[in-house]
Amino acid sequence: MIAAYQARCQARVDAALDDRLQPPRAELERLYQAMRYSVMNGGKRVRPLLVYAACEALGGDLDRADGAACAVELIHAYSLVHDDLPAMDDDDLRRGQPTTHKAFDEACAILAGDGLQSLAFEALSDARGNPPSAELRLAMLACLGRAAGPAGMVGGQAIDLGAVGSQLDQAALELMHRHKTGALIEASVQLGALASGRADEHALKALHSYARAIGLAFQVQDDILDVESDTATLGKTQGKDEANHKPTYPALLGLDAAKAYALELRDQALHALRPFDSDAEPLRELARFIVERRN
Amino acid sequence: MIAAYQARCQARVDAALDDRLQPPRAELERLYQAMRYSVMNGGKRVRPLLVYAACEALGGDLDRADGAACAVELIHAYSLVHDDLPAMDDDDLRRGQPTTHKAFDEACAILAGDGLQSLAFEALSDARGNPPSAELRLAMLACLGRAAGPAGMVGGQAIDLGAVGSQLDQAALELMHRHKTGALIEASVQLGALASGRADEHALKALHSYARAIGLAFQVQDDILDVESDTATLGKTQGKDEANHKPTYPALLGLDAAKAYALELRDQALHALRPFDSDAEPLRELARFIVERRN
Repeated sequence: MIAAYQARCQARVDAALDDRLQPPRAELERLYQAMRYSVMNGGKRVRPLLVYAACEALGGDLDRADGAACAVELIHAYSLVHDDLPAMDDDDLRRGQPTTHKAFDEACAILAGDGLQSLAFEALSDARGNPPSAELRLAMLACLGRAAGPAGMVGGQAIDLGAVGSQLDQAALELMHRHKTGALIEASVQLGALASGRADEHALKALHSYARAIGLAFQVQDDILDVESDTATLGKTQGKDEANHKPTYPALLGLDAAKAYALELRDQALHALRPFDSDAEPLRELARFIVERRN
Repeated sequence: MIAAYQARCQARVDAALDDRLQPPRAELERLYQAMRYSVMNGGKRVRPLLVYAACEALGGDLDRADGAACAVELIHAYSLVHDDLPAMDDDDLRRGQPTTHKAFDEACAILAGDGLQSLAFEALSDARGNPPSAELRLAMLACLGRAAGPAGMVGGQAIDLGAVGSQLDQAALELMHRHKTGALIEASVQLGALASGRADEHALKALHSYARAIGLAFQVQDDILDVESDTATLGKTQGKDEANHKPTYPALLGLDAAKAYALELRDQALHALRPFDSDAEPLRELARFIVERRN
């Protein structure tokens, strides 16, 4: 069931993204090619799915959430392009394909990432489709700015780079992940809720707890897959974390305890959704999917 | 007179920038240090000055323009950090100091630039100070997104990198500059005008003509200074354009014709301001300053 929902969200956001990645003139074609290459790559679109599912959980129309769905995916895509750069994680492979700086060149990858970040904020601020009110969009932009910026995702990558080769305890590891991946996942859920136009404080708080739990679960499962899966299934180099002496949950807790922790986080997420009716079923399905996925 | 106005604008925007560059926690200190290093460097703050001067030209309160002044400077600062990277222009010196990737490291410089871009959009979307209405700020965010992104500044850098070593004609050179530096200068003026809350269509159009002319004048003068000045005065490596076989106005038109062109653009800018009263004097002064400056 989540697969069908995911396919629908994927088709929906892919059409909106495609629309935003058309080169406005011939001189900019290569830059836009690099941006398209970085975005239109068959990605799972977990963050747009969270936007749509959170909007739906509150009974909102999905077409009010398209801008936010594009925005979070554009931020995610830019972060991957920059994280893969030689000066950062230096990765050649992403979802089974050459990374952007390999397929194009390093300068082009830096610029493509920069451009994708701008487009993300533009997607929330321009008036394409059927956007929410100015006040709501402004709140959404502030939320995205905080989540993507140095106090959020970018800060998480900085903490991560600073931690390579060092012994983090569980609190320090969670701090890193809450910034690096958690902030944008939490923002995705908040943006979807805000886009619905029906979010009150209670709903936002419950959805925040949900998002916080699945954000961490996602990362714990990622770490588990890096140990258990293989390069072909992952679409990226398996065993890379260990080879880079990156701190991971299996390294810290042991593999079995890491798996138990992922399941505990899933249950926390489901618990947070108790006040919601069946409109929140996609969010529930996703919480289950995150800890069951194999790539 | 423009020096005193510039000093006032500089002090004003520097205080607002300083406020936005405080690390929220100890783990993020190095990232914020790199961002502060990239921003709080005694820069001329030409773009914030344009924001304030355009706001003032329409009789607006300056405290409504602080967010926009921060935003354009943060975008400008991030673009310099990324442009200086080894994979891009590979420059070691900026305003007489080591570039960010030299003072810190390459990964940190990439992240600092990324974080500064997020902060720019946050500065326009959060509600610090005395911001304009939600509708106006949304229009300002869309304007900044377009100007900073792949159809604007980032696109200009991509065109520039693609043009190194090739023979551009004047039209192609202007296309590059209109994207690379012109888009953000034009946005600065538009943002200041919008922030005033008093901009009608005529005023925006006149200010756009003004901004377009000074944006180009700024670039022509930069090219002239790269030929005529010295490294100590410039605070960056003199003669770098020629050494890199970059297309420039002096190379294309000859030095004398380039100087005449800069003056002609100044006059176009002043002409565009004829409908404005003495509140537009700072904008007029700036148009004169741009072609008279020595660094």
